[in-house]
Amino acid sequence: MTKLTISLAALLALTCPALAQDAPDAPSPGQIVAEAAGEEWVEISGDDLLVMTLAPDDDGTERTVVIQLMPAPFSQGWVENIRTLARAEWYDGITVNRVQDNYVVQWGDPNYDNPEADGAAKPLPEGLQTVVESDYVTKLDAAGIEAVRRYFSNAAAPRQAVDSVAIWRADPYARAHAFVAGWPIATLDMAPEAWPVHCYGMVGVGRGMSPDTGSGAELYTVIGHAPRHLDRNIALVGRIVEGMEHLSSLPRGSGALGFYTAEEAGKRTPVLSIRVASDLPAGRPAFEYLSTEGEAFARYAKARANRRDPFFIVPAGGADICNIPVPVRRVAD
Amino acid sequence: MTKLTISLAALLALTCPALAQDAPDAPSPGQIVAEAAGEEWVEISGDDLLVMTLAPDDDGTERTVVIQLMPAPFSQGWVENIRTLARAEWYDGITVNRVQDNYVVQWGDPNYDNPEADGAAKPLPEGLQTVVESDYVTKLDAAGIEAVRRYFSNAAAPRQAVDSVAIWRADPYARAHAFVAGWPIATLDMAPEAWPVHCYGMVGVGRGMSPDTGSGAELYTVIGHAPRHLDRNIALVGRIVEGMEHLSSLPRGSGALGFYTAEEAGKRTPVLSIRVASDLPAGRPAFEYLSTEGEAFARYAKARANRRDPFFIVPAGGADICNIPVPVRRVAD
Repeated sequence: MTKLTISLAALLALTCPALAQDAPDAPSPGQIVAEAAGEEWVEISGDDLLVMTLAPDDDGTERTVVIQLMPAPFSQGWVENIRTLARAEWYDGITVNRVQDNYVVQWGDPNYDNPEADGAAKPLPEGLQTVVESDYVTKLDAAGIEAVRRYFSNAAAPRQAVDSVAIWRADPYARAHAFVAGWPIATLDMAPEAWPVHCYGMVGVGRGMSPDTGSGAELYTVIGHAPRHLDRNIALVGRIVEGMEHLSSLPRGSGALGFYTAEEAGKRTPVLSIRVASDLPAGRPAFEYLSTEGEAFARYAKARANRRDPFFIVPAGGADICNIPVPVRRVAD
Repeated sequence: MTKLTISLAALLALTCPALAQDAPDAPSPGQIVAEAAGEEWVEISGDDLLVMTLAPDDDGTERTVVIQLMPAPFSQGWVENIRTLARAEWYDGITVNRVQDNYVVQWGDPNYDNPEADGAAKPLPEGLQTVVESDYVTKLDAAGIEAVRRYFSNAAAPRQAVDSVAIWRADPYARAHAFVAGWPIATLDMAPEAWPVHCYGMVGVGRGMSPDTGSGAELYTVIGHAPRHLDRNIALVGRIVEGMEHLSSLPRGSGALGFYTAEEAGKRTPVLSIRVASDLPAGRPAFEYLSTEGEAFARYAKARANRRDPFFIVPAGGADICNIPVPVRRVAD
């Protein structure tokens, strides 16, 4: 019976578009975010922000990319390594070596695990951890489990419970999803094991073949449809919060896996430096994210799943977790 | 009990990676496609291929983009308009006006429905149809319904039936999905109504506010995570089968919705021409797609959903329809 109601509603919306516009002045997702109260925004620690400076482009335009690192309990072994590498200034002078369309942009030592390598790999600094594969998945603490529970009981979240909540929040990759402390997370059947998911703009750690898990010296970001088959197979450590366009619009490499060939070495964009924001002088980049536990985010997610702003005639009635990007904004230092 | 089995298998795979490599020589999706028999490939009619020539890039490199138009029964009013526009040479001299990161690249008359317009719109040719909104959705014929049924009964397709097939093939956007004659399609509960979905590289028809449905003069392609909320709200007419990188790597526009501002007018890439391939002289581009009804495609889809090639330690156990791109290859004319 419930299923019938849904189908009929959708069909009515298709044949009688005016019916779907029952809220013609409904705010868009962007409006909801713009109107969110100040206390709904959460400061991001400067220790969790990386400032990556690329060489200027051909027009001399400066290119800065800001990465937000994941907080505990996710991927902390790799995240700590990345801070170590940044503070050792190891990243300075590496390059963007791989740009594969609808997949990833990858930066690091051009001689690391690169079919187009033409020299020896750059030695890594002291003090890096070797992280184990089991850390691709995290046991949530009580607060994390509570966040999952809250998401499932939140009437404003996408899709109402119909047959059972887990079914409606499932997608082909996991039985359940939630936002935990500002991050998109998947779980198995409400179990305490959870893992971050490969959405557009997420940042991960390149690695060799198992059991290698990567040190953090080699990083990539997603520039296409969410490659969710990488979930639990590779560490995610953060996301791009500013300057994504400087990576996503780079020329694609024509070598295997989108690596630039030796003949295309001139296309490798130099990374001048990567710094932890808290190590920079005053005037450093500062950001906030919209709390994923708050009322504004719930309304935003609902609006993403049921677009009622004037352009839309049929609301989707749902959204996959990668289509609900967590709002992040720059603020004064 | 079934659910428990799934969870345990996934957890075992996480803690005992060797177990997940029970088929260490399993072919990758790419290998399966490369080894598919010749008769599994289907010729694409030259009437369904558009050749779009962009102005050369700054290095003088030629840029050609090939678009495959959707066959009947989908979106044929718009598809016919697009052939009319191409044969009237109306597209010649238009520009790429909008590049919005993680969303779309749009080309057309820079003065059509553009917040940055600075002139009058270009008159359209005679003979264009006005297509109605109900055509965003198509009633499948018997063959189409059979394709949906076959997908659901195909043991090699992603995800085995567990609770019920519709649940496992569902995602937050539709109760069921299938490939019909080489195209990704969504349906409501196995109903005969179906619609194409907004995957990476799909091509759609820009429009104004409802009830406008667009003529086909204004086209866009998806360059980010599948914006499935556009399904049933806008016409899809095809997909890019070659040269996608010439669009996805264009500089992003800084105006509203990613339009290039008046100051950025120099970034608008000129479209020199768009031609129907069958109207070109011999030596014209020719393509085939891997039949989505055949055995090779079923194995390919299964391998996309359960990566067993050596890099992977945990197979996802599923794939959303936009993560199973239909293989297309260039062949001699």
